[in-house]
Amino acid sequence: MKALRILRPGSPEGLELADAPEPVPGPADLVVQVQATALNRADLLQVLGRYPPPADVPQDIPGLEYAGTVLSTGPRVLRFKRGDRVMGLVGGGAFAERLVTAEREALPIPDALSFEKAAAVPEAFLTAFDALVLQGGLRPHAHVLVHAAASGVGTAALQLVHAFRAEAIGTSRSPGKLERCRALAPFHPVVVEEGEPRFADRVLSITQGRGVDLVLDLVGGRYLAESLACLAPRGRLLQVGTLDGPKAELDLRQLMGRRAQVVGTMLRGRPLEEKISLARSFEAQVLPDFQSGALRPVVEEVLGMGSARAALERMASNTSVGKLVLAWGDGA
Amino acid sequence: MKALRILRPGSPEGLELADAPEPVPGPADLVVQVQATALNRADLLQVLGRYPPPADVPQDIPGLEYAGTVLSTGPRVLRFKRGDRVMGLVGGGAFAERLVTAEREALPIPDALSFEKAAAVPEAFLTAFDALVLQGGLRPHAHVLVHAAASGVGTAALQLVHAFRAEAIGTSRSPGKLERCRALAPFHPVVVEEGEPRFADRVLSITQGRGVDLVLDLVGGRYLAESLACLAPRGRLLQVGTLDGPKAELDLRQLMGRRAQVVGTMLRGRPLEEKISLARSFEAQVLPDFQSGALRPVVEEVLGMGSARAALERMASNTSVGKLVLAWGDGA
Repeated sequence: MKALRILRPGSPEGLELADAPEPVPGPADLVVQVQATALNRADLLQVLGRYPPPADVPQDIPGLEYAGTVLSTGPRVLRFKRGDRVMGLVGGGAFAERLVTAEREALPIPDALSFEKAAAVPEAFLTAFDALVLQGGLRPHAHVLVHAAASGVGTAALQLVHAFRAEAIGTSRSPGKLERCRALAPFHPVVVEEGEPRFADRVLSITQGRGVDLVLDLVGGRYLAESLACLAPRGRLLQVGTLDGPKAELDLRQLMGRRAQVVGTMLRGRPLEEKISLARSFEAQVLPDFQSGALRPVVEEVLGMGSARAALERMASNTSVGKLVLAWGDGA
Repeated sequence: MKALRILRPGSPEGLELADAPEPVPGPADLVVQVQATALNRADLLQVLGRYPPPADVPQDIPGLEYAGTVLSTGPRVLRFKRGDRVMGLVGGGAFAERLVTAEREALPIPDALSFEKAAAVPEAFLTAFDALVLQGGLRPHAHVLVHAAASGVGTAALQLVHAFRAEAIGTSRSPGKLERCRALAPFHPVVVEEGEPRFADRVLSITQGRGVDLVLDLVGGRYLAESLACLAPRGRLLQVGTLDGPKAELDLRQLMGRRAQVVGTMLRGRPLEEKISLARSFEAQVLPDFQSGALRPVVEEVLGMGSARAALERMASNTSVGKLVLAWGDGA
């Protein structure tokens, strides 16, 4: 089969469309014919040689999410059959014509979604759902601060917060991106100026001084102190990325006084049972909302698999709203 | 009645035994004749004028815990009657001959404990129990790192970890204090040298490289980065004090990679329903262990109420193991 392989780690130039061995399924696995996949920061880091993949996935093929059709099923597979449309997360190896996944990790694609739309769902919406709902205990009428609101995870979070009847505040450095996000769901936009990030005063003013119950933070670094400064009592900050770097200053007295929590989380590298549990909760609580149209995958652009390098550079330039999708077909 | 009142905030000299108005009970309250109380850091901070008490307690009388007898009961009191021996936490006002408490916050004193021993129980053991068990989800055979192991909370934590069938590692700057703690419960002692604190390597070696599931940290400051460096995957750090100061550096990538949590917590200032809930859980899960002798209050010394200033200075000097108790009787 063909796959995008990291032939020379260190730069996007080293990522090439090349032959790769077929993945080998186990008895409870599906072989999926991948129709589309989407880009994530982790792919870029892996291509740069700065993010070693878990041991149980193809080491030189990036790609964390897919949408496709079931090509074959192991003897212990119970639910899906050849030809079924499925999507999901994998620990790696999604930038390929075919991949293997445990059946119970796969999600059925709602009829309303094309493969290209479906490929934009798993990482963004599972990350946001896991952090906000499963780990954050999102409640109706809660206030949620979503940093990098125009990112894949951010655009998913804005919609999920609204769908779960809570109120989102979304930050971005770009007023234009925030404007584009308004079409997704109602939220309070907060532009973070270049230089030292400042947003706590704005957030406190929007929440009448109470602060936010949850923060979903892809940015980290200097954002932490400001986020903590606008956290409500018993508030929780979910750290899902470190675009501004990993080093942060934490005021422990503030943390104690608010009885607040800073929670680090990531999906990749979780044990199988946790990944399955997440997929099943997501299917029950969220998937129907894609069929109804209440939730919509946010696709900035669909490119052909051959354009992966350009797509990686595009992602690194931080100009997109939502996801960049790669498709094996004509890319339309 | 007599009480230790802060007549001139700013130094222990301003704390004086003086007349104070009788506390006024509500219909579901007990009036308690205080026999003994114990010192906490918060008392010292309050005397120094650096820790304003909650609004619903006497503003100029410190004291967060008591042991005594029920003097009178409101018409809605159901459980306790005049003469019953009770102990518990209050938001302030325990350095007095009498105090008022909601009945459901009070705990019966086990027969095996004198008032002086009982006064050493509430803050230390409720803090450690709440953090380790209720918030930390302490499980059998877990590894728990207890900083400031010789403190009131530390000595309670070492015993609770053992009673809950888990394994404690206790740190202190003083080898002598750690030696004295050995009589309380089995644990792995780790001496933290003066200067830049270093203990992560020792803790990792004790846990065969896996790290600890929980950290109970009274120290904060420079301890945070080292604690995080020896936290196991999905580990949780409970911040209950900041003896080394509130400013800490946090590596968010490490936090994410371990899916770890930093949780700020404090008992004072919680709403009534949470304080009651904690007292009830403690009574069910922990109190019988004082009667059996499996848990023992750790009293460094019992002083008369008139010696409060000397006791505060003693506490500030960090030379005690366990609690300093103040008694209204002869102080023996």
